[in-house]
Amino acid sequence: MDCTKLVNKVIYDREKIREKKPLIHHITNYITANDSANITLSIGASPVMVDNPAEIKEIIQMADALVLNIGSLSSGQEGVCLKAVELANKRDIPVILDPVGAGAISIRKELVISLLSDYKINIIKGNLAEIKSIIDIPTSVKGVDSEDTMGGAGEAARELAWKYNTITVITGKQDFISDGQSIVIIDNGVPLLAMVTGTGCMTASLIGAFSAVEGGSLYAAVGGVLTMGIAGQLAARQAVGPGMLRYKLIDEVYHINENKYKKLAQISF
Amino acid sequence: MDCTKLVNKVIYDREKIREKKPLIHHITNYITANDSANITLSIGASPVMVDNPAEIKEIIQMADALVLNIGSLSSGQEGVCLKAVELANKRDIPVILDPVGAGAISIRKELVISLLSDYKINIIKGNLAEIKSIIDIPTSVKGVDSEDTMGGAGEAARELAWKYNTITVITGKQDFISDGQSIVIIDNGVPLLAMVTGTGCMTASLIGAFSAVEGGSLYAAVGGVLTMGIAGQLAARQAVGPGMLRYKLIDEVYHINENKYKKLAQISF
Amino acid sequence: MDCTKLVNKVIYDREKIREKKPLIHHITNYITANDSANITLSIGASPVMVDNPAEIKEIIQMADALVLNIGSLSSGQEGVCLKAVELANKRDIPVILDPVGAGAISIRKELVISLLSDYKINIIKGNLAEIKSIIDIPTSVKGVDSEDTMGGAGEAARELAWKYNTITVITGKQDFISDGQSIVIIDNGVPLLAMVTGTGCMTASLIGAFSAVEGGSLYAAVGGVLTMGIAGQLAARQAVGPGMLRYKLIDEVYHINENKYKKLAQISF
Repeated sequence: MDCTKLVNKVIYDREKIREKKPLIHHITNYITANDSANITLSIGASPVMVDNPAEIKEIIQMADALVLNIGSLSSGQEGVCLKAVELANKRDIPVILDPVGAGAISIRKELVISLLSDYKINIIKGNLAEIKSIIDIPTSVKGVDSEDTMGGAGEAARELAWKYNTITVITGKQDFISDGQSIVIIDNGVPLLAMVTGTGCMTASLIGAFSAVEGGSLYAAVGGVLTMGIAGQLAARQAVGPGMLRYKLIDEVYHINENKYKKLAQISF
Repeated sequence: MDCTKLVNKVIYDREKIREKKPLIHHITNYITANDSANITLSIGASPVMVDNPAEIKEIIQMADALVLNIGSLSSGQEGVCLKAVELANKRDIPVILDPVGAGAISIRKELVISLLSDYKINIIKGNLAEIKSIIDIPTSVKGVDSEDTMGGAGEAARELAWKYNTITVITGKQDFISDGQSIVIIDNGVPLLAMVTGTGCMTASLIGAFSAVEGGSLYAAVGGVLTMGIAGQLAARQAVGPGMLRYKLIDEVYHINENKYKKLAQISF
Repeated sequence: MDCTKLVNKVIYDREKIREKKPLIHHITNYITANDSANITLSIGASPVMVDNPAEIKEIIQMADALVLNIGSLSSGQEGVCLKAVELANKRDIPVILDPVGAGAISIRKELVISLLSDYKINIIKGNLAEIKSIIDIPTSVKGVDSEDTMGGAGEAARELAWKYNTITVITGKQDFISDGQSIVIIDNGVPLLAMVTGTGCMTASLIGAFSAVEGGSLYAAVGGVLTMGIAGQLAARQAVGPGMLRYKLIDEVYHINENKYKKLAQISF
């Protein structure tokens, strides 16, 4: 892979999102659903949040991608997740899985492993504790946040991707993306981002938007993560605190452009 | 009708809201509930969000209006909606229905038609795809967002209002309000508003507040839509993006006044 | 008690929160969950929101405090509340109860009384209508908001605290805190705060963070209430309206420091 080529692909795909305005179906948590919807709009896609078992079939018929976030999993939602992924696989639309809390809560870990084993998950995006937990690497975890430094992240991303034939994204101080072979590292993150809840969920929404317009999940993962990283960096420069950062993030995603991608992207392999 | 008279009525009612501080009971979705609550406070009313079947009876006894939004309808909520409207009708308090997704999801459309057929719905407020779908006019729809230009909006608003003896509001590039005979057009909207999720839900909350203080639903619909339109216009002038717009909207609703209504209202018939 | 000593304790505990980064488990409502999570992060703690009965056991094993908010109580959540408090009591971690709506809705009042009677609730924090209602003092109430002036607040706080062997916090124009004997009054509130939904919920989250690092619930209550009061005061100075106030609050909690506590604290007995 080549850094310039990757950035050019992201720029191209971002224009495609604005043109096509893909519908991104979210099954997500009530804590960050509003931010996920707003960031989806900001990148130029159209969000829909539907998790009623009686409704998802119709929505998935229209959807261009499915973002599955298990951050407030209720008993009912488990079945809905499986059903939604099954329907998405049938239509061959990309599925992005955000395994929130899989590092801390055993039924979430089990659900994630079921999903990865029995269905096509195009991209899984978690923090280091979540990803390590799924492939049974010991880790330290605190609720839904990872306490890890990024040690072993590249290898963990590669291992999970290889094992389940998917793209793995690990977000944190640095972001790691792997297809099971290569590892892409994106280094645009800023510490203040960790003070805002839902930045991971928002990244998954952006990945969902990118996945809905192009042919390769690795590019979609890079597109979503890079957009979040650059927007976060620009937002943090102006924000006096995490409250301001939260709304600036949305504005910076809305105003991202070719020039910013080219100038700011920190990608290595 | 007369434009100046309408604006004066809105100004008068807005003062009444501040004096009376009516309680606006919401049964609504988890994605935009926070914005709905905050905009209700900003106009001077008091929001309450209760959807537990065991609790709604007590709340409706105190409520001055009921705003029903089916944007995250769960199986349980269907029964709650019917029960809530029945109780609201018994007490003769205004009911505002936001048929989110009725253009895309058949069980939502069915629920909306049941509500309109079997109960008194004072005001229904949706986008063009939702309203057309309810009266079986073919339309294009994308999830919960309408893809339509505003073609045929006036007629659709009039037809639904006439058929179900209600007031219909269609929001979009322009806003159309009809009582089944006249059509009021409000043209204060700005494109950036479409980049913020929940502006429709917030408009319904404002309509709910206006409906709780005066005698005619048409005036309440105009009051809510006009307030949102002017606040949106003023907010968009200052906002660098949709993140900022979201909070500025709340501030502008809070600071709306006689002068702004008179100077900015764009109403035609 | 002594005012300077109290403020110094708050300053010390706030540093402890940053060092320890305690995990604050919330069972809370969908309307204000995002703000609760973000304010928890801003003070330096780590939020987790889990209310699935199958998941709470694992989370409470890791948690440093439990914040229970019944603002969108569903039938399922009742059982979860009881279970969560039982588990928290077993582990002897502090439990903060926010009895949202207990002044208006009888099943909420009953649940709160059960919790207070049968379990250890370290701190209960409500508005005046809620607290009075729990100890059967007649009051006026409007939905989930209190209409009371603060008349009788000190006595009500003391009575409830004494009766149930807990710490009572009553928030409003002034804030009252009692351990059943002394009454602490904090007078940093500003009227604009009442125009933002969820400030009470956010205060409970802050109290939760303070309760997780020190040995006395009275200090934790003072810490949370004082932090919210000072942050609110500083935020209101800059905010042009309630929309801006909402995000400034988060920023001001993030930037609170020794100097601001010492200079601005308005505490009396």
